[in-house]
Amino acid sequence: MIYRFQNDYSEGAHPRILQALSDCNYTQSAGYGYDPFCQEAVELIRNKCAAPSADVHFVSGGTQANLLVIHAALRSFEAVISAHTGHINVHEAGAIEGTSHKVCAVPSDSSKLTPDMIRSVCSEHSTEMMVHPKIVYISNATEMGAIYTKAELTALRECCDALGLYLYLDGARLGSALAASNGDLTLADLAVLTDAFTIGGTKNGALLGEAIVLTNPALQAQFRWHMKQRGAILAKGRLLGIQFLELLKDDLYFQLASHANTMADRLRQGILEMGYEIPIPSSSNLFFPIFPNTVIQQLQENYTFEIDHAIDADNTLIRLVTSWTTPAEAVDAFLADLAKCR
Amino acid sequence: MIYRFQNDYSEGAHPRILQALSDCNYTQSAGYGYDPFCQEAVELIRNKCAAPSADVHFVSGGTQANLLVIHAALRSFEAVISAHTGHINVHEAGAIEGTSHKVCAVPSDSSKLTPDMIRSVCSEHSTEMMVHPKIVYISNATEMGAIYTKAELTALRECCDALGLYLYLDGARLGSALAASNGDLTLADLAVLTDAFTIGGTKNGALLGEAIVLTNPALQAQFRWHMKQRGAILAKGRLLGIQFLELLKDDLYFQLASHANTMADRLRQGILEMGYEIPIPSSSNLFFPIFPNTVIQQLQENYTFEIDHAIDADNTLIRLVTSWTTPAEAVDAFLADLAKCR
Amino acid sequence: MIYRFQNDYSEGAHPRILQALSDCNYTQSAGYGYDPFCQEAVELIRNKCAAPSADVHFVSGGTQANLLVIHAALRSFEAVISAHTGHINVHEAGAIEGTSHKVCAVPSDSSKLTPDMIRSVCSEHSTEMMVHPKIVYISNATEMGAIYTKAELTALRECCDALGLYLYLDGARLGSALAASNGDLTLADLAVLTDAFTIGGTKNGALLGEAIVLTNPALQAQFRWHMKQRGAILAKGRLLGIQFLELLKDDLYFQLASHANTMADRLRQGILEMGYEIPIPSSSNLFFPIFPNTVIQQLQENYTFEIDHAIDADNTLIRLVTSWTTPAEAVDAFLADLAKCR
Amino acid sequence: MIYRFQNDYSEGAHPRILQALSDCNYTQSAGYGYDPFCQEAVELIRNKCAAPSADVHFVSGGTQANLLVIHAALRSFEAVISAHTGHINVHEAGAIEGTSHKVCAVPSDSSKLTPDMIRSVCSEHSTEMMVHPKIVYISNATEMGAIYTKAELTALRECCDALGLYLYLDGARLGSALAASNGDLTLADLAVLTDAFTIGGTKNGALLGEAIVLTNPALQAQFRWHMKQRGAILAKGRLLGIQFLELLKDDLYFQLASHANTMADRLRQGILEMGYEIPIPSSSNLFFPIFPNTVIQQLQENYTFEIDHAIDADNTLIRLVTSWTTPAEAVDAFLADLAKCR
Repeated sequence: MIYRFQNDYSEGAHPRILQALSDCNYTQSAGYGYDPFCQEAVELIRNKCAAPSADVHFVSGGTQANLLVIHAALRSFEAVISAHTGHINVHEAGAIEGTSHKVCAVPSDSSKLTPDMIRSVCSEHSTEMMVHPKIVYISNATEMGAIYTKAELTALRECCDALGLYLYLDGARLGSALAASNGDLTLADLAVLTDAFTIGGTKNGALLGEAIVLTNPALQAQFRWHMKQRGAILAKGRLLGIQFLELLKDDLYFQLASHANTMADRLRQGILEMGYEIPIPSSSNLFFPIFPNTVIQQLQENYTFEIDHAIDADNTLIRLVTSWTTPAEAVDAFLADLAKCR
Repeated sequence: MIYRFQNDYSEGAHPRILQALSDCNYTQSAGYGYDPFCQEAVELIRNKCAAPSADVHFVSGGTQANLLVIHAALRSFEAVISAHTGHINVHEAGAIEGTSHKVCAVPSDSSKLTPDMIRSVCSEHSTEMMVHPKIVYISNATEMGAIYTKAELTALRECCDALGLYLYLDGARLGSALAASNGDLTLADLAVLTDAFTIGGTKNGALLGEAIVLTNPALQAQFRWHMKQRGAILAKGRLLGIQFLELLKDDLYFQLASHANTMADRLRQGILEMGYEIPIPSSSNLFFPIFPNTVIQQLQENYTFEIDHAIDADNTLIRLVTSWTTPAEAVDAFLADLAKCR
Repeated sequence: MIYRFQNDYSEGAHPRILQALSDCNYTQSAGYGYDPFCQEAVELIRNKCAAPSADVHFVSGGTQANLLVIHAALRSFEAVISAHTGHINVHEAGAIEGTSHKVCAVPSDSSKLTPDMIRSVCSEHSTEMMVHPKIVYISNATEMGAIYTKAELTALRECCDALGLYLYLDGARLGSALAASNGDLTLADLAVLTDAFTIGGTKNGALLGEAIVLTNPALQAQFRWHMKQRGAILAKGRLLGIQFLELLKDDLYFQLASHANTMADRLRQGILEMGYEIPIPSSSNLFFPIFPNTVIQQLQENYTFEIDHAIDADNTLIRLVTSWTTPAEAVDAFLADLAKCR
Repeated sequence: MIYRFQNDYSEGAHPRILQALSDCNYTQSAGYGYDPFCQEAVELIRNKCAAPSADVHFVSGGTQANLLVIHAALRSFEAVISAHTGHINVHEAGAIEGTSHKVCAVPSDSSKLTPDMIRSVCSEHSTEMMVHPKIVYISNATEMGAIYTKAELTALRECCDALGLYLYLDGARLGSALAASNGDLTLADLAVLTDAFTIGGTKNGALLGEAIVLTNPALQAQFRWHMKQRGAILAKGRLLGIQFLELLKDDLYFQLASHANTMADRLRQGILEMGYEIPIPSSSNLFFPIFPNTVIQQLQENYTFEIDHAIDADNTLIRLVTSWTTPAEAVDAFLADLAKCR
């Protein structure tokens, strides 16, 4: 029996979501997200974000959300600034370029962007011979598991204001970021500090679905036309509304994220205590330890996880991910097996 | 209590689908469609189509399927030929143009394409000053409810072969078309006669999902890269595989379509018997009668449906749609109410 | 010796243009259109248009101008309304679609657009399931040789204002339109009545070049970025500025157009007097007579021209074009030869 | 009197080109490059390249040539590998992304690509979550003035063959590269070693124009459709054919490039002898010395040149460019003035 620490989307959905889908299964409603479930979920998200005039849209995945928001914000010669490790830069098969925009990628050891990095990109792009950076893309938690503090996000906001840039936060793992033990950001903070952000459902207990929250009115106009042109409006849009309603009507969304974080903390702590290195600080539900290749081979007998890249001839960086459904037993078994490798 | 004859996606999913999702909910599997459910569903579809070398991919919606297949088949200056009423021409917000291709729209009273129409478009596009038509788009059933016969589809295939064109069939309502009382096409026929087609799940009992079947090897290479670039690969791809497996492992898919057709036949028959006109012949689960505006107003008290367009000052074409879950009682109630309108 | 009535770009340039290029050949100047020639030409055009705040840009061809202006004005799901015969709809190989926009083509017997046609397109496009028409494309003279009156253009302007549409006029043959004997429009009128228009050089005596005049400030922002992204900024931008300066510093531009029109009038008059039909009224330098196929074959011994399309089994519509350099002798010889065909 | 070492396109054209345009000015010919001048120029280039089956096309500028070749070679999710300093990566306002492709940029101290760099990019892009590198872009001379040797280009060719990549060489400054004193490549070598390359006219004495040479048949099909869709076919296409004919019918093209190189050598030598540093080796008509800021200020009184970037608080990298028309007097005057700065 192999346990997967490979990602946070290896299972189905939280049982309350399946139940909610079942409960209203035969209720007829309008298509394309004009149903009461979606409308209620939109209102709920506005309330949770303390952003009554925000536009909220539901789409089926994170790449779709990213390309929609970024393309809607930009003219074709305008570009998006991203950390080199940003999902849009490496793991979306050129989705942003596919809508005509360059990704200006910035190296970042921490996987986070800083105001200095942004200023540097802008100062290098000054004439019509070059793309015009106009939006900043960050993810929280980042693809490497790091999270932004309120102070960091505020500094980015100020930098973007000074430079006339939009700030967009990819929240594919937003639950984990907000629920992190050292996190100090709330949904309401995001609504104030960004122009747009997403609330990820797929990686936090939903069957599928990301909520796009557009707080800046400049990004709101006719956003659904963009969605339709890219094939992002589901006929049974209610499928997404029902799920977000269930996740957010009480604190289920954050409870699931907290569980994943707790399991990650337990796993991370155990690994660090055995003396292994985790080069990029993480307090979310995924992190990247360095293991000897021999250890990795032994672990792979019972567990799956992603191989990131070779550190040297003998050691490799791997990715471990926990989820809303990871049992403590799996974590403890992994640690026990790891201890035996030594 | 209002009943919706507005579309075939007003409810959730067939209960067997919900049950199947629930049954394997905690089973861990690979992401992005590399799970055993999707793999099994792919094999099942290949078998049903008698097309062992077909590529099969699952996506979340019809517009997405259309833009993916058409874009994958074309260079940017190449164009798609469609009936003027084709979904890609009028109801996808420019999704095809959004991937750089012109839709060459042809007027068609029946909503179906004929070889003559295709030849005419090709003969008008002869130099590099014009787009180059390279793929033919048809839908079965069409957006107006018409279905293609095997003879008609064979004639289109021969025409496309003669002109060097791909033939793509949008099967958003394929179940209804294949299950139609006067239908003579099978999945295996489609695999032989088209280069690519889709098997629609959303409008035939699934929560969401279309299966793309690529039978022409020229369209298969690296199709998943196209999917990813357009945001069309679900992290929990299994959500689609599980549903298609359930729909197709026995004849559920065709049973649901037959039910929808039976209800449409009953509704259509009743309407025709009262002397109303249905200008475009339909044998699928949707059709377009002409009603006096006064009748429409009365019907709207108890039913919703789409208004298509005004025929004259006093009469209007409307759309009526039945589905896998339409009860005979709703049909009979509609007919009874309609009888009272006279 | 064959004479070409095929188009208005069969020769080089007016000798004054070649002389002007030669005169400043060794003068060094800035690249990319930042040279004094371009700057002076821009000022001259602003003056001629009585539009001191217009933005003026020079590009190498008409398709490039069209795709730049239309794309700069639109978001990707927005569409352009054009007559079915419009250059962007049939003769640009999908250049507009290549930048992601649908062309909503309207049949027009006259090749001109009317407010009713525009209103009809807009009323059919009402939801996010469809493209959103946002700009109107007209050409003056049209591709069929027709010209707009001031009253007609004013009516289009009012219609566009009422519907929130931009109005763009393709002036590839603007000289001929403005110089037409029954024309009543001026450059200053165009600056008031359109949001953007072009002044065609290629078809009126230049080696190459179209001037884009952007009068609506909403279209001006960062237009040069669009130009660069599409490869439309010439390193030696002065090549275009020098030519427009020479064409417009006195009335050379209109003299050349008048000559072409006079030759077209002479040719048209002679053809009509012999009883041939010219179905679409034209008062510019190109027109479309119907000739018997036998006549066409005889004419082709001494002349080239474009075959438009067969009217019936025995008769064909052809296109005849005169230019700034067409000699009266060629016109008279054609008419004499045509007379002999009878 | 200021002399411009700013670029190689500050003047008009070589007088023989102006004369050639004048000589055939009134000769009528077909449009869109179907004229005898273009046809003869195509044959001439095929002969010079010893590539009788190559396709040759003429376009107005380098960015246009780059976006056309690269887009024609790629599907939308495919990417181009370029040095970080590559023109397509930094100085084309996102022209490549504007046609949907990512530029995979590689740091290179020399501004040249090596097989190791290419292999590294390919090994990092392995799944459909990432773009698929499919073409390599190099420029010769590079944007920093470096040139490739035949051995280097052969190694790149072998690397590309092994990895299934196209190799495209941007020859905006090809004349200078081939005429360089330490150069060992010929046009015929390029035809064998690349899949496509350009022969730059604009920066070597033409008014405008780049010749695209497509040697790989896979890139040839319907290339003119791509050209038209991007607005790259000139109505008076002969303007480009006449110029390339004049440049290449004897050795004018290489004479002009040699002159520019000789002037650059003289300038470079003088600067090096005064002890200034030129960090990137160059043997073409442009190079990048480091000067103290105080020296730069003094030089700017009599010369213009591009400021590249600050090396430290007191020193700056600048770009100096010579051309087919740079007089030795200007070079000597610059060196004399530079000597006085010390």
